[in-house]
Amino acid sequence: MSEFPATDASSSQSQPQFDLVIRNGQVVTAADTSYCDIGIRDGRIVALGENLAAGHEEIDASGKLVLPGGVDAHCHLDQPMPEGMKMADDFTSGTRSAACGGTTTLIPFAAQEKGQSLRAAVEDYHRRAEGKALVDYAFHLIVTDPTEKVLKEELPQLIREGCSSFKIYMTYDDLKLDDGQIIDVLSVARNEGAMAMIHAENSDCISWLTKRLLAAGHTEPRYHAAARPMLVEREAAHRVIAYAELVDVPILIVHVSGAEAVEQIRWARGQGLSVFAETCPQYLFLTAEDLGIDGYEGAKCVCSPPPRDKANQQVIWDGLSDGLFTIFSSDHAPFNYEDPLGKKPGGKEVDFHYIPNGIPGLETRLPLLFSEGVGKGRISINRFVELTSTNPAKLYGLYPQKGSIAVGADADLVIWDAQREVTIRNEQLHHDVDYTPYEGMQITGWPETTLSRGEVVWGQGVPSDAVGRGRFLHCGRPEMAKPRVR
Amino acid sequence: MSEFPATDASSSQSQPQFDLVIRNGQVVTAADTSYCDIGIRDGRIVALGENLAAGHEEIDASGKLVLPGGVDAHCHLDQPMPEGMKMADDFTSGTRSAACGGTTTLIPFAAQEKGQSLRAAVEDYHRRAEGKALVDYAFHLIVTDPTEKVLKEELPQLIREGCSSFKIYMTYDDLKLDDGQIIDVLSVARNEGAMAMIHAENSDCISWLTKRLLAAGHTEPRYHAAARPMLVEREAAHRVIAYAELVDVPILIVHVSGAEAVEQIRWARGQGLSVFAETCPQYLFLTAEDLGIDGYEGAKCVCSPPPRDKANQQVIWDGLSDGLFTIFSSDHAPFNYEDPLGKKPGGKEVDFHYIPNGIPGLETRLPLLFSEGVGKGRISINRFVELTSTNPAKLYGLYPQKGSIAVGADADLVIWDAQREVTIRNEQLHHDVDYTPYEGMQITGWPETTLSRGEVVWGQGVPSDAVGRGRFLHCGRPEMAKPRVR
Amino acid sequence: MSEFPATDASSSQSQPQFDLVIRNGQVVTAADTSYCDIGIRDGRIVALGENLAAGHEEIDASGKLVLPGGVDAHCHLDQPMPEGMKMADDFTSGTRSAACGGTTTLIPFAAQEKGQSLRAAVEDYHRRAEGKALVDYAFHLIVTDPTEKVLKEELPQLIREGCSSFKIYMTYDDLKLDDGQIIDVLSVARNEGAMAMIHAENSDCISWLTKRLLAAGHTEPRYHAAARPMLVEREAAHRVIAYAELVDVPILIVHVSGAEAVEQIRWARGQGLSVFAETCPQYLFLTAEDLGIDGYEGAKCVCSPPPRDKANQQVIWDGLSDGLFTIFSSDHAPFNYEDPLGKKPGGKEVDFHYIPNGIPGLETRLPLLFSEGVGKGRISINRFVELTSTNPAKLYGLYPQKGSIAVGADADLVIWDAQREVTIRNEQLHHDVDYTPYEGMQITGWPETTLSRGEVVWGQGVPSDAVGRGRFLHCGRPEMAKPRVR
Amino acid sequence: MSEFPATDASSSQSQPQFDLVIRNGQVVTAADTSYCDIGIRDGRIVALGENLAAGHEEIDASGKLVLPGGVDAHCHLDQPMPEGMKMADDFTSGTRSAACGGTTTLIPFAAQEKGQSLRAAVEDYHRRAEGKALVDYAFHLIVTDPTEKVLKEELPQLIREGCSSFKIYMTYDDLKLDDGQIIDVLSVARNEGAMAMIHAENSDCISWLTKRLLAAGHTEPRYHAAARPMLVEREAAHRVIAYAELVDVPILIVHVSGAEAVEQIRWARGQGLSVFAETCPQYLFLTAEDLGIDGYEGAKCVCSPPPRDKANQQVIWDGLSDGLFTIFSSDHAPFNYEDPLGKKPGGKEVDFHYIPNGIPGLETRLPLLFSEGVGKGRISINRFVELTSTNPAKLYGLYPQKGSIAVGADADLVIWDAQREVTIRNEQLHHDVDYTPYEGMQITGWPETTLSRGEVVWGQGVPSDAVGRGRFLHCGRPEMAKPRVR
Repeated sequence: MSEFPATDASSSQSQPQFDLVIRNGQVVTAADTSYCDIGIRDGRIVALGENLAAGHEEIDASGKLVLPGGVDAHCHLDQPMPEGMKMADDFTSGTRSAACGGTTTLIPFAAQEKGQSLRAAVEDYHRRAEGKALVDYAFHLIVTDPTEKVLKEELPQLIREGCSSFKIYMTYDDLKLDDGQIIDVLSVARNEGAMAMIHAENSDCISWLTKRLLAAGHTEPRYHAAARPMLVEREAAHRVIAYAELVDVPILIVHVSGAEAVEQIRWARGQGLSVFAETCPQYLFLTAEDLGIDGYEGAKCVCSPPPRDKANQQVIWDGLSDGLFTIFSSDHAPFNYEDPLGKKPGGKEVDFHYIPNGIPGLETRLPLLFSEGVGKGRISINRFVELTSTNPAKLYGLYPQKGSIAVGADADLVIWDAQREVTIRNEQLHHDVDYTPYEGMQITGWPETTLSRGEVVWGQGVPSDAVGRGRFLHCGRPEMAKPRVR
Repeated sequence: MSEFPATDASSSQSQPQFDLVIRNGQVVTAADTSYCDIGIRDGRIVALGENLAAGHEEIDASGKLVLPGGVDAHCHLDQPMPEGMKMADDFTSGTRSAACGGTTTLIPFAAQEKGQSLRAAVEDYHRRAEGKALVDYAFHLIVTDPTEKVLKEELPQLIREGCSSFKIYMTYDDLKLDDGQIIDVLSVARNEGAMAMIHAENSDCISWLTKRLLAAGHTEPRYHAAARPMLVEREAAHRVIAYAELVDVPILIVHVSGAEAVEQIRWARGQGLSVFAETCPQYLFLTAEDLGIDGYEGAKCVCSPPPRDKANQQVIWDGLSDGLFTIFSSDHAPFNYEDPLGKKPGGKEVDFHYIPNGIPGLETRLPLLFSEGVGKGRISINRFVELTSTNPAKLYGLYPQKGSIAVGADADLVIWDAQREVTIRNEQLHHDVDYTPYEGMQITGWPETTLSRGEVVWGQGVPSDAVGRGRFLHCGRPEMAKPRVR
Repeated sequence: MSEFPATDASSSQSQPQFDLVIRNGQVVTAADTSYCDIGIRDGRIVALGENLAAGHEEIDASGKLVLPGGVDAHCHLDQPMPEGMKMADDFTSGTRSAACGGTTTLIPFAAQEKGQSLRAAVEDYHRRAEGKALVDYAFHLIVTDPTEKVLKEELPQLIREGCSSFKIYMTYDDLKLDDGQIIDVLSVARNEGAMAMIHAENSDCISWLTKRLLAAGHTEPRYHAAARPMLVEREAAHRVIAYAELVDVPILIVHVSGAEAVEQIRWARGQGLSVFAETCPQYLFLTAEDLGIDGYEGAKCVCSPPPRDKANQQVIWDGLSDGLFTIFSSDHAPFNYEDPLGKKPGGKEVDFHYIPNGIPGLETRLPLLFSEGVGKGRISINRFVELTSTNPAKLYGLYPQKGSIAVGADADLVIWDAQREVTIRNEQLHHDVDYTPYEGMQITGWPETTLSRGEVVWGQGVPSDAVGRGRFLHCGRPEMAKPRVR
Repeated sequence: MSEFPATDASSSQSQPQFDLVIRNGQVVTAADTSYCDIGIRDGRIVALGENLAAGHEEIDASGKLVLPGGVDAHCHLDQPMPEGMKMADDFTSGTRSAACGGTTTLIPFAAQEKGQSLRAAVEDYHRRAEGKALVDYAFHLIVTDPTEKVLKEELPQLIREGCSSFKIYMTYDDLKLDDGQIIDVLSVARNEGAMAMIHAENSDCISWLTKRLLAAGHTEPRYHAAARPMLVEREAAHRVIAYAELVDVPILIVHVSGAEAVEQIRWARGQGLSVFAETCPQYLFLTAEDLGIDGYEGAKCVCSPPPRDKANQQVIWDGLSDGLFTIFSSDHAPFNYEDPLGKKPGGKEVDFHYIPNGIPGLETRLPLLFSEGVGKGRISINRFVELTSTNPAKLYGLYPQKGSIAVGADADLVIWDAQREVTIRNEQLHHDVDYTPYEGMQITGWPETTLSRGEVVWGQGVPSDAVGRGRFLHCGRPEMAKPRVR
C-alpha cells in the first residue's frame, strides 16, 4: 500500500503525511540543483517533489538554498591534553557552535595516550560526549601506541564497531608514530577497510629548526611558521605516499597547506595512487604574516602546518576547484587566548613552541567557503556541498545516512541565506573560545536554519537548547578506503 | 494548492497524480544512491519518494538500477562527407541505437564546409535531423572557416540560439584551423561563454610520417597508428592548452588516448588552468595491435587518435577514476566495413590514409564502461553517471533539463539490469554499421528499459518505432565554460 | 727527431723553439686548472709545461688566468635588414669589439631572404666579411625559404662545405618557417649531421597580443614584453622538442629566457631527448622593468624573448650552474638608439612593434658572466670556459681547432685579469653601437690581453689594427648533432 | 732558468729532462682530446707537447688512448664485517685488481662501528692499508654513531685531516642513522665543507616486505629484489634531498639504480638544489632477473639497491649521457660465492636476507663503461674520463693531484687499447673474489698499461708486485661541497 498520498481520504486529512515540509527552496546536492519541496518524517527525508502535501510543520525556504547539513570531519573537542593545556570546547559548546554554522555532523578524535589501550580511549571519549551533543557525531581514532594488541585486536574490533577511520601523526612527540609503526598501522587499514588520515609534517626537521631558532633567541609566535617551512610538509607527504603505495591502501592527507604538498599529491594521482586530500579555512584566509602581528597576538593563528602566503592560498583554491581536494574541514582546535591553559603565555616564558597548536573554526567553516568560494565564483554550489558534506560522509562511512539530500537520508539540512551580509565577530559565535582569527571579516551568506534529523537546532538566531539529543554514529567501512583496482 | 497527495479525496482517487511511477529501483545520480520511487508527469520527474502514490502506469524496477539516460556528447550522424565516403548512420538509426544502449540525448556535429556559411551548415543539419530522431538531440558546431563574418556574426548568434559548443580540429586538411584561427575562435568562446572542444593532433607530424610510411610501402591499416604516435597528440594538447591560457578560456580536449596527452592535461591543471578532458571506449578496450589483425580487418579499428597499448589503457582508467576525465563519449563515427564508401578499400588501392576514420559505439558505450568500470570496481556507479550523463549535460548547457534524476528534470531514465550477461554481437545492435569492434566481447550489465521524457524508447528487447519524437535541444551557456576565478 | 729541447745545442741557442711563450699563468680549460707555461709556434699551441724554454717573445701572465679565447656562437653583424633598419656593426667593428672583450671566434648568420637562394646568401655574406675581420669567424645559416632545391641541394652542400649549423625562426614574418617546413629542415639536419638552432617563440600568440595591445593604445616599449609572455616561449619550445623527437635529431634552443622554457627543456632531458640550450647575458642582468624606464629609453633593452624578472634570472643561473645550458652567447644584435634606422622612432610613430629587436653585447659577454658567475661563486672557472668557449666550439664543429688550451689547438687565448674593477661605459667599448644596456654596471675582471692564433689583438688597452687578418672557419659536422644512442 | 730544453747542450745530452715520455698517444681529458706527448718527472706530469725531448724511458702509445687513471670512489676493501661474513679483498688484492683495470686511486670506507670512536675506525683502517696498496688511496668515513663527541670533535677534525667525505646509510641495522642523526651529520658537512654520500633506501619498507616475503616462504635470492622495489629508493632519495635542502648542503646519492630515484634527483635539480648522483655498472648490465637464475647462483648478483630491468638500464644510460650522474663507481663489495663467509649459504638455511650485499667490480668498471658507453656511441670519451676519474677526484678533494692529465698532476695514466676484444673471465681478473657477475661478457677495449705516479703497475698482462708503494691521500675540502650561491 502506498503511504502518500493516502487512498483513504479521511486519514490523509486528519493526519499529514509529513512531520515537516520544507517548501520552495533551491535544493542542492553534490551533483544537482533543483527546486522542490522536501518531505520529512521520523527525522528522515521521505519525499522530494513539486507541491508536496502539507506537513505537520512547514518551513518556507523561498529564495533560500537548502543544503545537506555540513559534516565537519576534522575537529577536536574536549580532547585530553598534556599538562598545562586545555581545550576550550567540549561536546556541548562544540556541537552548538557547529550547528549554528550549518554543520550537523562532527567527527572529533578519540586519542590513545601512549601506554593506554585504544579501547580505553574510546570509552573515555564516549563518556565525554554522552548527553552533551546537540547534533550527531562519530569518532576518529588517534593511534599513538600501536602495540601488538592494538594492531591485532583493538583496532580491528573498533573499526568493525564503527570507528572506521584513524589518524596518524608524523610529528608531535606525544602523538607521532615512527615509520615502521606507520606502515604497520596502514596495513591494518588495508586489511580492515579503514580510512587512514595523515598529519604530514617531518618531526626531525621541525626539531632541528626549532632548536636553532630558539638558540638564536627567536621565540615569538611568528617563528612557529619559520620552524615548519613547506619542505617539512612536502617530505612527510612524499614519505607517507610511498608507504601507502607499499601497502596498497588509500590515504587521506589532512590540512594540506600549500604548493609543495599539493605537488606531491598531484604527482601521486598521476601515478595512479589513491591519495585523498583535505584542506581547511586557515589555508585560504590566513598567511604566515598573521602570526607576526603585534606582540603575542599572532599566537591566535598558530596552527600546524602554518598558514603560508597569498600565492599558496591560490594553489589551495585551485585544488578546491579542480578536484584535488576531497574534503574541506575546520580542524577546529579550541584554545583560549587569554587563559593560563591557552595560547597566551601568561607567566610562562614567551616561546613559540609552547603555544597550543590549532585555531577555532567550526562555526565559520561553511560561511567562509561559501562567501569566498561560491559567492566569488571560484567553486560551484554543488562542489561546496561535495567538499563540506557529501564527501566527508562518504569518506568516513556515514553515507547515505548523512551527507546528502536524498530519499532515505537523515533530515540534516541547512536553509542557507545566500544574501545575508555578516561581519564576523567572536561575540556572535557560539563556541567557548575567546577569539576567532577571522574577527572583522566581511562575508556574504550564513545559515538561517539548521535541522538535525528534522529538528531545528539553529534558527531565528538562536541555537536549540536540546543538549544531549545528538547521537553517536557508527561508521561503516567506506568504499573510498578500498585499494584502487588496477 | 498542493498537487499530491490531493486534499480532495475524490479527485485523488479518480485521477492518479503521476503518468508513470517507477517503483523500487535503486536510483543513482552523480552524487547519490538511494532507494525510492520516481513519479513522472508530462515527461518530467515531479517526485522522488518512498511509497509514492500510484501512477497511470507503473514499472517495477526492483533489483534494478535507475540511472539518468546517457548523454552522448560526441558522435557523428549523417554528417556531409568528402566524396567517396558516407556515414552509415543517420538520425534515425543513430538515435535508435543510442536509445537501445541507454542513451537519451545525443550531440552530433553540424559541420561547416570551408567556404560555406556556418549558419547554412546548421540549417542543413536541422533538415537532416528533422522528423527522424527517436530521442532528443542538440548540435555542436564544427568551425572550419572562421571568416570575419563567422567570428563576428554567425558564431555568436548561433551560440546564443542554442549551439553553445563547437569543435576545433588541429588535423585533417578539410577541417583543421591554423593556429591564428584557433586563437581567434577561442576568443569567441571566451566572449560568448561557449565551450570549445579540441581534436588535438599535430597535422604536420602526421603528414611527414604518412609520407615516409607510404614511401616505404607501409600501406596496411596498422600504419595508421604508426603515423600518429603519442607525441602527435601530446604536442597538440600542449599547444592548445597554451592558447587557452593566452585567451583565458576553458577548453575540452576530446578523445584523449593515452599517457602523453594525459600528462599535459595534468600539468595544466596543476598550473590552475581549466582544461577538461574526454575519453572514449576505444582507448579502454582496443590497442594498436587491433589495427594489425589479419588482412584488412584492422581498418575496423582505425580511428584518430589511434588506440595505444595496455599500459595506456591503464592510464585512461586511472584518469576516469581520479577525476582527470570530465566526460566519457562514444565518438561514434559510423562507416561500414564492406562498402565502397566505407572502410574496406574495394577497388581502391590499399592505403591506410584513405580509410575513413572512426568507429561505431553509440550503443555499447554505457554497457562497456559499466561492465569493466563499475562491475570490476574501478569506478563507482555515481562516477559512471557523472561521466556519461551529468557532466556532459552540464558541460554543454543541457543541465538541469538533462543529465540527472531530480525533481523538474526530463524523465530520461534507464532501468539498468546490472546482472545481465551479454556477448556483444553486431547483429544484435541497432545501428546501421555492419560491424562492431567489440564483437564477441563478454560483458555484464545492459539497459533493460530506456525512457525518453517518460516514454519507453527501448524495452523488452525492442526499440520504439516512434521515429521523429526526438526534439532539438537549445543549449545554454555552460557554467563550466566560464574562465576560472583566480 | 724531437723538436724541443733540441739535441743540437747550437740551433737551440740561436733559434728559440717557440714564437711565443706565455709564462706563469693559471691555465684553465673546461675541465682543468693548472699552473704552466704555454709554448706557441706558427699560431698553434705546441707545448704546455713547467719552465718551458724561451720563446721569441714572452708574456708574463703571473697572477693572471689564461683562458681559451671566447667563442661567441650567436651574434649578428652586418646582416641585410628590412627597409628602415640597419645593423650598426659590420665585421670590422664587431670582431674588434669581440676581441677587446676576450672573444676570438664569432659565428654570425648568413641569412637567406625569402625567394633568394641560400648559397647566394652565403656568398653575399662572404663578401661582407672579406678583409674586414680582426679575429676568425664561421657562419651559421638562416633558412627562411626551404624550397625543394634548398632542402635537397643547397643546404646539404653548404653543410658539407663548412656551414654545418643553421637557425630556424618560429616567429618574425620575414624569417619564420611553418611547422611542416621546420620538420623538413630538421630532417636535413639529421641526414647531414648539422646542428639546428631554434628561436622558439609562438608567432600567432605574439600577433594576437600585439594587435590587442596596440588596439588598446599600448605602444610604449614595455609592451614589447607584454606581447611576449613566457607561455609564448614555452609553447614553441615544447613544439619544436616534439619535432626533434619525431625526426630524432638533437636541437639547440637559443636565448632561453626563463622558467617556463627551462621546464620544457628539463622535461625533454628527462625523456632522454637531446635538447641543448643557450642563454645570454640579458636574461641574467636585465628584467622586463628595464623596458619600462622613462620615455623611450626602454627600447634599448628590447630583444626577443624579452628579459623577465628576478626570479627568472635565478632560474637561468641555476641552469648555468647545473648543466642545463650548454652555451652562453651574446645574441649581439647591434642597433643604434639615436638613429633613424635604429631603436628610437625619430619621426616615426611610437610603436613597440617597430623597434628593431636585439641588444649589443659582444664585448661585455665574458666580463659579465665572469664577474657575477665566477666571481660570486655561482659557477666554477672551468664551467665558465666550457659555456663560453669549449662547448660552442664543440657544438658547431670548430673543436679542437678552437675552444680549448691544448696541444695542437689554435693559440686563441685570453690573459684575464680577475681582479680588475671596471665600470661599464659605452664610450670605452669598441662596437659601433651608441649604447650598452649595462651602462654604469660595476664588475670585477676584464681581459688584459687577447691573442688570436698567437697574435695580440687586444692588449694594453688598445685593439690591434690588423683588420682583415681574421679567417673564415669551415665547421665540421659536430658530434653533438648525432642522434643519441638509445 | 728554464728547465727544458736546456740551454746547456752537454747536460741536456747526458741527462734527459724526463724520467719517462709517453709518446704519440691520443691524450684525453674530461674536456679535451689532443695528440701529444707526455713528459713525466718525479712521478708528475711536467710537460705536454709535440715532439717532446727524450726521456729516460719511453712508451710508444701510437694508436692508443692515454687517459687519466681511474678514480674508484666507491669500493669496499677489508672492511670489518659482522660475524659470519668476510670481505674477500684486502688492500693488496683490491688495489692490484683496480690497477689491472685502469684505476689508480681508490677510496674505500673507514667504517665506525656503533659504540666505537670514529677516529679509532680510521686508525684501524690505516693499519689494514699500510704497506699493502699497489696504488694510492684515500678514505671515506662511514658514520654510524654520531655522538656529541663525534659531531663536535672527531668528524670535524678528521675532515680537516684529510677524510673530507663520509657516507650515511639510511638502511642496514648496523649502519643506518635515524633521521635526526642524518640532519645533524649533514650539518657537520655544511659547516666543515665535507661531501656527504647517501645510501638511500628506506629501511622500514624493506623490513616490512622482507618479513612478509619470508613469512610466505619466499627465501630465494631473487626475493632480495622483491624486498627492495624502486619506491624504497625513491622515498629515501626524496627524504634526504629534503634534509639537504633544509641544511643547505650539497649531497651525493650513491649507486642510483633506476627511474624513480632519477626522477627525484631531476626534480631536485630543477628546484635549484645541489644533488649529485653516482651510478655503477650493475645498473647498466644486470637486471633483477639475474638474481633469479637457477638454484642459488643469483646470490652472486645480490646488491643494494638491486638491479632493475632493461627500461631502467636505459634511464641510467640517459643519465650518464645527459649530465645527471656526476660519477661512475664500482661499489666493489667483495664476497666469495663458494665460501662459508660468503654468498652461498653452505650449512646455513637458504634465506635471501642473510646474503652479504654487494658484487665485485673494481677491475671491470672502466672496460664495461668504455665498451658499451664510448664504443657504442652513448657517451663521448671525454665524458667517460669525467665520470670515472676527473669528477670523482674533484668531488672528493683529490683534484688537481688526481683526476686529469695536466701539467703538475700525478702521472697516474692508463694507456688504453680501444680495439682489444675481451671475453670477461673471472680467472683472468686479479681480485680475490671467486666470481664476476659479468662472466662471459664480450667487450671491446682494455687497459694496456697502467701507471701510478709514473710507475707501471699493470703492463704486458702482468700486475706489478710493488705492493706497498701506494700512498694514503689527504683529501681537501671539495669545491662541490659548497652550498650553491643563489
